[in-house]
Amino acid sequence: MQFNFRCPTRIFFGRDCIAQNGSEFTALGKKALIVTGGSSSKGNGSLKDVVAILNQENIEYQVFDGIEQNPSLTTVFRGGRKGREMAADFIIGIGGGSPLDAAKAVAILTVNDMGEQDFIARKWTCQPLPVVAVPTTAGTGSEVTPYAVFTVDWAESKMLIAGENLFPTLAFLDGKYMLDLPWEVTANTAVDALTHGIEGYINKKATVFTDLLALESISIIGKLLRQMNPDHISLEEREQLLYASMLAGMVVAQTSANIVHAMGYPFTYFKGLPHGLANGVILPAALEYLAQGSPGRVEQVIKTMGCQDITEVGDLLRKVLPVTDIHLTSKEEEKFVAKTMLVKNLDNCPLRPGEKEVMAILSKIALQKV
Amino acid sequence: MQFNFRCPTRIFFGRDCIAQNGSEFTALGKKALIVTGGSSSKGNGSLKDVVAILNQENIEYQVFDGIEQNPSLTTVFRGGRKGREMAADFIIGIGGGSPLDAAKAVAILTVNDMGEQDFIARKWTCQPLPVVAVPTTAGTGSEVTPYAVFTVDWAESKMLIAGENLFPTLAFLDGKYMLDLPWEVTANTAVDALTHGIEGYINKKATVFTDLLALESISIIGKLLRQMNPDHISLEEREQLLYASMLAGMVVAQTSANIVHAMGYPFTYFKGLPHGLANGVILPAALEYLAQGSPGRVEQVIKTMGCQDITEVGDLLRKVLPVTDIHLTSKEEEKFVAKTMLVKNLDNCPLRPGEKEVMAILSKIALQKV
Repeated sequence: MQFNFRCPTRIFFGRDCIAQNGSEFTALGKKALIVTGGSSSKGNGSLKDVVAILNQENIEYQVFDGIEQNPSLTTVFRGGRKGREMAADFIIGIGGGSPLDAAKAVAILTVNDMGEQDFIARKWTCQPLPVVAVPTTAGTGSEVTPYAVFTVDWAESKMLIAGENLFPTLAFLDGKYMLDLPWEVTANTAVDALTHGIEGYINKKATVFTDLLALESISIIGKLLRQMNPDHISLEEREQLLYASMLAGMVVAQTSANIVHAMGYPFTYFKGLPHGLANGVILPAALEYLAQGSPGRVEQVIKTMGCQDITEVGDLLRKVLPVTDIHLTSKEEEKFVAKTMLVKNLDNCPLRPGEKEVMAILSKIALQKV
Repeated sequence: MQFNFRCPTRIFFGRDCIAQNGSEFTALGKKALIVTGGSSSKGNGSLKDVVAILNQENIEYQVFDGIEQNPSLTTVFRGGRKGREMAADFIIGIGGGSPLDAAKAVAILTVNDMGEQDFIARKWTCQPLPVVAVPTTAGTGSEVTPYAVFTVDWAESKMLIAGENLFPTLAFLDGKYMLDLPWEVTANTAVDALTHGIEGYINKKATVFTDLLALESISIIGKLLRQMNPDHISLEEREQLLYASMLAGMVVAQTSANIVHAMGYPFTYFKGLPHGLANGVILPAALEYLAQGSPGRVEQVIKTMGCQDITEVGDLLRKVLPVTDIHLTSKEEEKFVAKTMLVKNLDNCPLRPGEKEVMAILSKIALQKV
């Protein structure tokens, strides 16, 4: 038995967990920069709760909003400048994966005046500011990972940065912020979390401990995807999804992802598919491939999801995810394969796929969805 | 759903994990004080591994050995003076629960010159030094908890101190250090870990996440207690025990223990029973009591251990633990009850026991064992 495990983030989970833990904020400093998206954090109550606790604890704050989906480096560098201008002591990310990842970048860039290439190469010298993560979707797991993903135009791709000091210091997980989340976003993000659990379980870096967390996460999400009523998702179900996505985040924080995420990035960059949806589209064909290297683990995933076989997994994903037509020209296919091959995490597959295998998965996706 | 979770300790588990992670030590400083017991760390290779890595990394060190079972305040205060004299940057605890807990105390006392009462009242003002924990038994879980337990003569008891900054910074768990551990110590410490899982599961502070970890731990230890051959325990079995005790440590780090530990302290202080054995002696009667407040959870524990009922749990414990005669005079019984009632963690029982209930459990123990 051999494993490493770390999850330095202190986790507060449950209704009104922000309001109940004001002293946790004061311990981080006197000035906070809030990093958030367009409007959702204003509508779902999360921004209001954060502002209320900052006011209560006499913490000065500014808001850097408008973080777009799959944030660009330009955006997070603007955030870093804002953090420097106000001399922020800590950064609060509120939203889905994009604002949380942006908050991590802003935490680095506030205290490190550097260029884009150096940032992507992780050449920062000062310890990033502490980050408080308030997820408002149940998918990213970013609140308990040392990862942040950005759109990098000069690489024509999404790129991931990782660093031990990118784990948020605090995470506040309150399912009430998700009560009004549209079904499409709920399903996409749930499938993202599902994929984290699956890619962490069928993974060369999987350990006895991550297996425990991954199977629990897969079991919860599999069950909910089969049972949830898109028109009425209860707080209890929201919390289950949020808990499962946190577990899956803890898993990928140790193992990293592998082929599904690697193949998903081009679908998002070139075709604009939301991240979770891109993963869901790829997952069934990827499972077939992964079964070549690790048949027992793929079997266990299928069973844990409550399905009979990969076909049933595919049927379930098609049922819950928005209809998506995938048309790729052969030139696009070649480009997607080339981009996928650049992702280092492919090494974590039980068998490392070559271009041929990635192309074969791509062809199956097209067959399935067109 | 409502829970908090934290485990800031970075965990390295597996054969030769110390030798493979030298850079983790250098990050903590230039001077280390090693806190360890009498002779076991010298015989099992753990001290040698630590010294080798410190030499390799050019870290100066001194050894403070001779930590006794259930360490006294006198001992740990001596350790603190030694740490101050050498101006240690960090403390390395090697051994069972006693040296690990002593290391935490020394980490406080090296940077806080204070009296015993203030220490027990947690009135230290300087942040304790970082602690590296190297467990050489699989029971305490202290490597992932914010607790340390000491013998306090003026209180005629063992007393627990807790503090967010008492989590070790690093933990190295290598099952090879346990290969020559006598069966009696193996069984006593395994039952200590089992009790952590059980008391964390049948607990007012139990959460969905600690339940996951607790049941896994209880399942592993239950199975091993039934299957292990006392004359030959494999490295794989040692690692399973060590992993299970780590999980149980993570659980009690969130929930604290309750009635078994509370009742166990007087058996150790006045009767000299090893800590795990004391817990094992109390456990069956305590389970009967806990079933009054939480019948479903007690049932789940019994099933997860692979037993049919509490009688079978008791039979299993009697089979693996050394024979122990418990004779208490009525005066002793009264004193034990009074000492137990002082333990705050009794609040964590599903139903808080009064003196009558604690006395009833004591009577059953006497009946069972004499």
